[in-house]
Amino acid sequence: MFKTLCVIGVGLIGGSVARAARKLCPELHIIGVGREEDAANLQEALRLGVIDVSSFDIAAAVQHVDCVVIATPVGAFGAVLTALKPVWSAQTIYTDVGSTKSNVVSVCEQLFGAVPENFVLGHPIAGAEQSGVTASLEDLFVNKRIILTPVASTNASALAKIQQFWEGMGASVSLMPVAQHDAVLAATSHLPHILAFALVDMLGHKDEQTEIFKYAAGGFRDFTRIASSDPTMWLDICLANKTAISALLVEMQGEIDKLLLAMAQEDAQALFATFTYAKNARQRFLTQFENAK
Amino acid sequence: MFKTLCVIGVGLIGGSVARAARKLCPELHIIGVGREEDAANLQEALRLGVIDVSSFDIAAAVQHVDCVVIATPVGAFGAVLTALKPVWSAQTIYTDVGSTKSNVVSVCEQLFGAVPENFVLGHPIAGAEQSGVTASLEDLFVNKRIILTPVASTNASALAKIQQFWEGMGASVSLMPVAQHDAVLAATSHLPHILAFALVDMLGHKDEQTEIFKYAAGGFRDFTRIASSDPTMWLDICLANKTAISALLVEMQGEIDKLLLAMAQEDAQALFATFTYAKNARQRFLTQFENAK
Repeated sequence: MFKTLCVIGVGLIGGSVARAARKLCPELHIIGVGREEDAANLQEALRLGVIDVSSFDIAAAVQHVDCVVIATPVGAFGAVLTALKPVWSAQTIYTDVGSTKSNVVSVCEQLFGAVPENFVLGHPIAGAEQSGVTASLEDLFVNKRIILTPVASTNASALAKIQQFWEGMGASVSLMPVAQHDAVLAATSHLPHILAFALVDMLGHKDEQTEIFKYAAGGFRDFTRIASSDPTMWLDICLANKTAISALLVEMQGEIDKLLLAMAQEDAQALFATFTYAKNARQRFLTQFENAK
Repeated sequence: MFKTLCVIGVGLIGGSVARAARKLCPELHIIGVGREEDAANLQEALRLGVIDVSSFDIAAAVQHVDCVVIATPVGAFGAVLTALKPVWSAQTIYTDVGSTKSNVVSVCEQLFGAVPENFVLGHPIAGAEQSGVTASLEDLFVNKRIILTPVASTNASALAKIQQFWEGMGASVSLMPVAQHDAVLAATSHLPHILAFALVDMLGHKDEQTEIFKYAAGGFRDFTRIASSDPTMWLDICLANKTAISALLVEMQGEIDKLLLAMAQEDAQALFATFTYAKNARQRFLTQFENAK
């Protein structure tokens, strides 16, 4: 499929792409790119055999490669694409794994006038609270969904190749418009993460005053797990998708108002209906999630 | 320790108390009490050997028992204590496992004028999303915290016996005032559960309009697990502890406002500081939680 692959940002996702791609194409030559401050991580990626060579220089690393995967935090895309622009090649296919997509389109429009036809925007719905190459897994994408968000200018054969690449790594590919991707992810991923951070921020301060965490149980541990995610990544996502996220946070405040009113009025029926609806909706999600495995 | 035990409400917690108590005192005679509409669950408790005999009649069941454990949903405490009152015995020690405590005090004050001296209020910080006796476990309380909330009238020897009973079942007992219990649990348990219900209620309705659940990942599954909890139980908790819960929900709305403002102002520093604080606070909780095991 590809003979040479360049992964920019060899963290959890970038490292897992490299590992899965190597399994898919054992002969693949993989170049890992990172920043000098992340030298230790790149060194580890080399040591683990996740990449074959490492580089701090994007322009040098991407020469003559078949495919470039941008897997840095979303906030670094401006710098990465600026570095790629002078050496952008029609012989290479570019893709990314950013958690938000409209902002990648904006960066491309600023730099290139439009999304280059051989840049296929994508987002694997797979991740974990861990980060760094040591957490990367060869099978991270197996049975996971990958959303590709082609735009009008996207080249059909580049799209087909990237789709095939992800399917080869075991993923199930969905295509959707950029705006829809960002709206869906704001609801299913960004909102829950931000609520978890907000809750733990609030309770953490209470815990400093009067110990409360010692009386928290396993449910609290599970509910707050996603608040262990990488702050830098979530800062980038918040800023990149702030319109959709803000709208949902306001909607969530309205949902809380609804419950506050029901409690104030001791409206048992309304509370019971909400909890029952949620329990059933969660079961509907779960059935779908487990079946997708 | 006890020769006869009556468990009123043989569900997840009541059933687990019965199983753990039997392990602690193999000779124990255990009477399970339920409502006629829950006959199947009681039948199952008998079949599993969790209880020795079953009854629908509280007054008849508690005659001459050493200890009565009230393990029904909190909303049924009024009815249960009303049924217990005419046969209340100084030879028996009473305890409960309700998730909220001020409301139990109120019910006692209405019925008895005060909490009877041989009624030791308690709450095991242990549970699961499952319910019913089939989900009960002999070791549910091992290394779990039990909060006992003695009041001024509580008899010291009854308190000591109940403390010993829980410790015998492997739990670690903390004593705290009723109000403090309800405030702590509102923060660490009630608030997260209600947020999870609210979120899943909101997103469930969105999913009905445009499929979003199919793009949700494992983090969403974990974050929403507690929204699978029993709606009846959570209705009772909401009504029983509504003052503390409402105050925290309003505080949570303020926390969301803080993030909304930071996003609107693209205040990267404030967002990053919040996410980092939350990540660290969650780690502090986790270390404590894992060490307690």
